[in-house]
Amino acid sequence: MALRVPFAQACRRATLNGPSVSSASILPAYASRWRRRNATVAPSVTQASASSKGPTAVVFMNMGGPSTTDEVGSFLSMLFADADLIPLGRLQNYIGPLIARRRTPKIQKQYAEIGGGSPIRKWSEYQASEMCKILDKTSPGTAPHKPYVAFRYANPLTEDMYKQLLTDGFGGGNGGRAIAFTQYPQYSCSTTGSSLNELWKWRNRLEGKRATGEVDPEGAIKWSVIDRWPVHSGLVEAFAQNIEKTLATYPEERRDKVVLLFSAHSLPMSVVNRGDTYPAEVAATVYAVMQRLGMKNQYRLVWQSQVGPQPWLGAQTSDTVKNLMKKNITDLVLIPIAFTSDHIETLFELDKEVIGEDAEGHEGVKRIESLNGNPVFIEALADIAKSHLESGVPCSPQMLLRCPGCVSERCLGQKAFFAGQEQRL
Amino acid sequence: MALRVPFAQACRRATLNGPSVSSASILPAYASRWRRRNATVAPSVTQASASSKGPTAVVFMNMGGPSTTDEVGSFLSMLFADADLIPLGRLQNYIGPLIARRRTPKIQKQYAEIGGGSPIRKWSEYQASEMCKILDKTSPGTAPHKPYVAFRYANPLTEDMYKQLLTDGFGGGNGGRAIAFTQYPQYSCSTTGSSLNELWKWRNRLEGKRATGEVDPEGAIKWSVIDRWPVHSGLVEAFAQNIEKTLATYPEERRDKVVLLFSAHSLPMSVVNRGDTYPAEVAATVYAVMQRLGMKNQYRLVWQSQVGPQPWLGAQTSDTVKNLMKKNITDLVLIPIAFTSDHIETLFELDKEVIGEDAEGHEGVKRIESLNGNPVFIEALADIAKSHLESGVPCSPQMLLRCPGCVSERCLGQKAFFAGQEQRL
Repeated sequence: MALRVPFAQACRRATLNGPSVSSASILPAYASRWRRRNATVAPSVTQASASSKGPTAVVFMNMGGPSTTDEVGSFLSMLFADADLIPLGRLQNYIGPLIARRRTPKIQKQYAEIGGGSPIRKWSEYQASEMCKILDKTSPGTAPHKPYVAFRYANPLTEDMYKQLLTDGFGGGNGGRAIAFTQYPQYSCSTTGSSLNELWKWRNRLEGKRATGEVDPEGAIKWSVIDRWPVHSGLVEAFAQNIEKTLATYPEERRDKVVLLFSAHSLPMSVVNRGDTYPAEVAATVYAVMQRLGMKNQYRLVWQSQVGPQPWLGAQTSDTVKNLMKKNITDLVLIPIAFTSDHIETLFELDKEVIGEDAEGHEGVKRIESLNGNPVFIEALADIAKSHLESGVPCSPQMLLRCPGCVSERCLGQKAFFAGQEQRL
Repeated sequence: MALRVPFAQACRRATLNGPSVSSASILPAYASRWRRRNATVAPSVTQASASSKGPTAVVFMNMGGPSTTDEVGSFLSMLFADADLIPLGRLQNYIGPLIARRRTPKIQKQYAEIGGGSPIRKWSEYQASEMCKILDKTSPGTAPHKPYVAFRYANPLTEDMYKQLLTDGFGGGNGGRAIAFTQYPQYSCSTTGSSLNELWKWRNRLEGKRATGEVDPEGAIKWSVIDRWPVHSGLVEAFAQNIEKTLATYPEERRDKVVLLFSAHSLPMSVVNRGDTYPAEVAATVYAVMQRLGMKNQYRLVWQSQVGPQPWLGAQTSDTVKNLMKKNITDLVLIPIAFTSDHIETLFELDKEVIGEDAEGHEGVKRIESLNGNPVFIEALADIAKSHLESGVPCSPQMLLRCPGCVSERCLGQKAFFAGQEQRL
């Protein structure tokens, strides 16, 4: 992050006249050096043609993960401070850091075991950048498309991403158009909702009086949100192909009898019972994938990564594998269905804990490759973004319905803000 | 039920030579009188043509409901005795009847308020019989199709239905083909699973030594199961049309803002956490209906009818409606998504309790009509049965995977039985 501020200042000077001024032309050497070290930097902002509504910033939102073991502490302390993700009540600010500190050594060891850090930043930056290349061709009217990544608990943080947007000539008096594109296919208040709350917070802080509408509201960034895409045909196809690839590694006579275990991050029952839409949308993805596969194999949707003593949604992935093994069902394929890149939940929890320990490394228990750099998946992302741009809506109608049991003022304000963007699109 | 036994005896005599002997020709007046009083009786069993594989019995399985308030006591005592539905542990046989007795007066009042009984028998018999008429045309190779209804806790009970099958010339030495067609679109061990366990139990008791294979195993009925159909296009279409009809009753300017609340019977978390497939399949139905409706309205999947102090899956329908009303969202359409006929859960719980009490009868809160005699729905049933007959499979692969946490020997035996039928189809 050391280089970010001077570059940001330089770029801000360079882009005073708005998106059509190329910062790269002023700072070519510096920018190219910065880019090599910071893959999330956007190329300079230049309209593709006079008739284009572009440039369009596309911000990939996700929880993120520590890139090195040194970042684990700050990652966990941000994670346990997030009441949208882990509601700890009034004492959140005291209990959160305590839990984070206590868990840090254990989690550091886990990251050490998967190579010293999460690959989620690498994959997110790659996916965003490849998707924008496709979008430039398929949606020339909104080109150029500029890739950004905003993580909730790790670098690049939402705050830094927003500053980078300003640096690159979006907002801050220049207006401009940005899409917040959640990288969670299924919507949960604890994941996408949390990222949107964070984005809204930094927008209000960093767009100054433009955010409140007191001065030059048109100069602030025009935002819209891609808030869920649980059954997009390209997503379903990418999952199905990866499952078929893994099934093909079993001898033919065993193949149709393999049990598919779709594993998603669980939620505390308090969140489920508040009316969170995530469990139903994950189930929709699973059903769509099974339909694409012709319903040939037996399957279950199971839930992983429970933490703490509160009740969470089950059946648990770990218990399921242990129970099936006891029933002599030992050909099992694990499918991480609610996350699109590798991360600690796949590389450590599924590979090391579930396959390595629960299944004792049984040769019949396997995991499908995560979507990561899968071109079918990246094509799907581009298709989702293109449809969104064509729709002219600020978000799905579903996003604007708060959970029936929600009492969060933050959610209320955030949703009102995005709904209000409709006037500006 | 008074007439059933003499008629059954008469028919047994009449059908000793198998399905091709018409009992109606022997007992026309008696049979026609019986039929007027007992709508579930099947017409006489006569092959449609020499080349037909028929006749085929199609048995609609459901939980049923008391047809009169006098039947409430026995209905509840059977319901609370069912460990597949309400697991009460070792003391089931003591606690079950106690709870049933305590709840009887209250539930009798509820049935009194909806006209003195459940219409589920009337609708099930109508649906089964209309569906068979369609099947006779669309699947002549398995005609004639004979409609039966088997309820789990009310007349006609599974035992009586099985005796009727024997009476009508199926099994008991004659072989013959029957389909157990669950009327729960989404599979749960506590509903369809319970009905199948009951069917398997009575098959073993009533087919005598043929059931164990000791004597003439080919003389027992050949069974197959339609165990789930959560996203059949006709089911989805029927739900969507009923939703559209209800939406059309709102003034145009309010229509798109109406919130759709898909309400399904909840499950205890102990059943969910054991790995029951129901929540995910209900979610699949909901998503399919929303896709058919173009995702225009906001919606939630919510859960009703919790009983007792144990945790159940939420958000609860009742809480949801109250919470939304507090947020000034008062245009709500309730959609019973996991039951296909009217019953106490729609006519009393949704209409009287949720709409009448929770929503205080607000004019904006409505319920869609249940599928009942809907011709689109009945066409869908016929299509599902036709595909099943063509498939030649005993059930879906998914049915044969026990819940990971299941320890029921009953489920194990039942699934083994139906799987084994594959050899005979």
